[in-house]
Amino acid sequence: MRAVDIIRKKRDGLALNRAEVEAFVSAATTGAWPDYQLAALLMAIWLRGMSPNEIAALTAAMTRSGTVLDLSDVPGPKADKHSTGGVGDSTSLVLVPLAAACGVVVPMMSGRGLGHSGGTLDKLEAIPGFRVGLSPDELKTALRTVGAGMIGQTGAIAPADKKLYALRDVTGTVESIPLISASILSKKLAEGIQALVLDVKFGNGAFMKNYADARKLAETMVGIANTQGVHTEALLTAMDAPLGFAVGNALEVIECIETLKGRGPADLEALSVGLAARMVRLCGITATQAEAEAKVLQALKSGQGVEKFRQIVAHQGGNPKAIDDYRLMPLAPKRVAVTAERSGYVTALEAEPIGRAAMLLGAGRDRAEDAVDAGVGAILRVNVGDALKAGQTMVDLFGRDDGKLRQAVEIIRGACHIGNAAPVAEPLIREMIGPA
Amino acid sequence: MRAVDIIRKKRDGLALNRAEVEAFVSAATTGAWPDYQLAALLMAIWLRGMSPNEIAALTAAMTRSGTVLDLSDVPGPKADKHSTGGVGDSTSLVLVPLAAACGVVVPMMSGRGLGHSGGTLDKLEAIPGFRVGLSPDELKTALRTVGAGMIGQTGAIAPADKKLYALRDVTGTVESIPLISASILSKKLAEGIQALVLDVKFGNGAFMKNYADARKLAETMVGIANTQGVHTEALLTAMDAPLGFAVGNALEVIECIETLKGRGPADLEALSVGLAARMVRLCGITATQAEAEAKVLQALKSGQGVEKFRQIVAHQGGNPKAIDDYRLMPLAPKRVAVTAERSGYVTALEAEPIGRAAMLLGAGRDRAEDAVDAGVGAILRVNVGDALKAGQTMVDLFGRDDGKLRQAVEIIRGACHIGNAAPVAEPLIREMIGPA
Repeated sequence: MRAVDIIRKKRDGLALNRAEVEAFVSAATTGAWPDYQLAALLMAIWLRGMSPNEIAALTAAMTRSGTVLDLSDVPGPKADKHSTGGVGDSTSLVLVPLAAACGVVVPMMSGRGLGHSGGTLDKLEAIPGFRVGLSPDELKTALRTVGAGMIGQTGAIAPADKKLYALRDVTGTVESIPLISASILSKKLAEGIQALVLDVKFGNGAFMKNYADARKLAETMVGIANTQGVHTEALLTAMDAPLGFAVGNALEVIECIETLKGRGPADLEALSVGLAARMVRLCGITATQAEAEAKVLQALKSGQGVEKFRQIVAHQGGNPKAIDDYRLMPLAPKRVAVTAERSGYVTALEAEPIGRAAMLLGAGRDRAEDAVDAGVGAILRVNVGDALKAGQTMVDLFGRDDGKLRQAVEIIRGACHIGNAAPVAEPLIREMIGPA
Repeated sequence: MRAVDIIRKKRDGLALNRAEVEAFVSAATTGAWPDYQLAALLMAIWLRGMSPNEIAALTAAMTRSGTVLDLSDVPGPKADKHSTGGVGDSTSLVLVPLAAACGVVVPMMSGRGLGHSGGTLDKLEAIPGFRVGLSPDELKTALRTVGAGMIGQTGAIAPADKKLYALRDVTGTVESIPLISASILSKKLAEGIQALVLDVKFGNGAFMKNYADARKLAETMVGIANTQGVHTEALLTAMDAPLGFAVGNALEVIECIETLKGRGPADLEALSVGLAARMVRLCGITATQAEAEAKVLQALKSGQGVEKFRQIVAHQGGNPKAIDDYRLMPLAPKRVAVTAERSGYVTALEAEPIGRAAMLLGAGRDRAEDAVDAGVGAILRVNVGDALKAGQTMVDLFGRDDGKLRQAVEIIRGACHIGNAAPVAEPLIREMIGPA
């Protein structure tokens, strides 16, 4: 099977068969095709698309390109969640302990985030001592003793995705539903889970700006994952304003702990509970979504959730005292308040520029090898729809550099819109996508 | 200007501006973009196409990526011809001496052919001693003294095309009208000519199988070349049966010499005269096409054409005695006749398999670095429409290896179709495309 024949077939809009897809993925893993042939095929896929069968074959081949965890010797139902990412999206830190407290075993493997703020790994590493680099055996021990492990993807997981993602990033072939679906699912299916909940974001702070694209991505992934035998549902959630009030690694960790203590922002709590409850139900722990939500809320209110988080932190080397004493978290020393220039109502808090301001302060990264600053970021002091007085603080910024803080203030000011009337509230969770 | 932004723009179907096209071509020339980014953009161009302005910018940038000959110190009007190639297509060897005999200065630079039989360079090298590797100064001397030079493209001519063509070949991005047009014209425009005639082939033995594609290619190239200030016309010519009777390097050279002596196949003579006459008229040597054709036919009949060919051969180190004594040409020792299995009429002589048989015998090459065998090939002994008797010779094969000859006989037998009635004759020259 020659590379050029496979490229030409996709270029001409024909569906690749399983053997052809496998040849492509194998070549990406072993280097058997030069990068220019991989790149040409990626562009042809971007422009011609892929059928559900092709995406399923691509996902399966990418999953099998590396290690697939075998958790059959760990008791209990295994499930995970994946979010397509948004500004202030730290639900993982809330829902993993809640789901684990309800009996779900959660082997969550994450990547480092690119963009506005760090990924789950960066947030966890804001906790002094927290170690994300567990080996597969260490992860199994964590799952057996604590019920959850939150670790980094190693190079052994879906190496074809690592190779292809790096090429997509530099060849303008990232934003493709078939390629995104296979990339996300190949890594999740390598976790050896039986259930998966997807949080697919849409809006100005999300990767998918419009609802139709996000919905198509969610439907595609739900279809593929269920075909591969993993019970999967997706929520379509709005990402126009940041989720919760905190944007930045340590700030988000503190907000998540507050949420686990029952004092968090309503949107972050509601979404985390909704996602955790889906994991509980898809694992068969409860029969209905309502029972699952009641069970998760009970775990939250009883303090079992925050206790589970304490166990996770302690098991992975983090200092559990930080959960009760936030002075142990590394917050940046300089604070600047961004105040309202006029009275009125908050009509929008644009997630994208707020994320960009956090990134400018050091919370995110441009390239995978960049370090992030755990202590910088922003806390929103208002909600969309709130009435405001001129001079009132809208956002507090945390930083280390006066020049960067000044630039961030300007960006934040442009991101906070004030009008004469409160806007109509839109629901955060817009739709649930289950198997067809 | 980032590569990925240019790739994304074309991917999204937008037209690249001049600066973006120039950045791409410059990167192909200098290696400033890695091959995977060039490949991704080539695939996006293949699938999204290019506007006339983009193709013009691409052609101009590729021309300027290397040396552009300055022939202003060589007296006389300069013109050339390019053919998109077909089986038995050796018009260059006939029309260059005819046009030169009529006062056109012809600085023809060619590449090595890939496929069924060699390119013009390979045919010329079948003449003992013929040297195609003239330097620019040697070419100028040839143009001043003989009026024509037939030489190889050096790496200094349009190096961007050399790089991009090699990538297109292995990434399934060859058959793109914008990319083909820019590739052909960039090299011809680097010759410093003021007129150009294009012979665009269509049919089973041509690169472009269907008429509409060939016509689109011809229109595109005529438009671009005239925009760049080169008077250009194209002929659309049929390539269903081989042109002339000979297929193979030395065999075609002999046939061309016979044509220059007035004893050649009617189709090869007519097309060569038609193309040479267009060069003569586009150079302003005559006012009308009819006058130009009369002038070229006069050069043919008077023997000025064959005399000019003798001068070209002698000037470039070839043995001019071979023009009168074909025993000096390197013909392969083994001959096999392919005979008709039934009586009837020749309904088709398929160019593509006949070319494939010649290639199998060694006349062509798969890869640029392969050598060709000048002495092997085929001579057709019948024309489409001829009446045939069972056992009559249809084709004589020239080879060196019995096994390959046997395989070639089978291929040729499948390529020669015999029916009960002569087919309706189709004209060889189907249409002329001039500037809009």
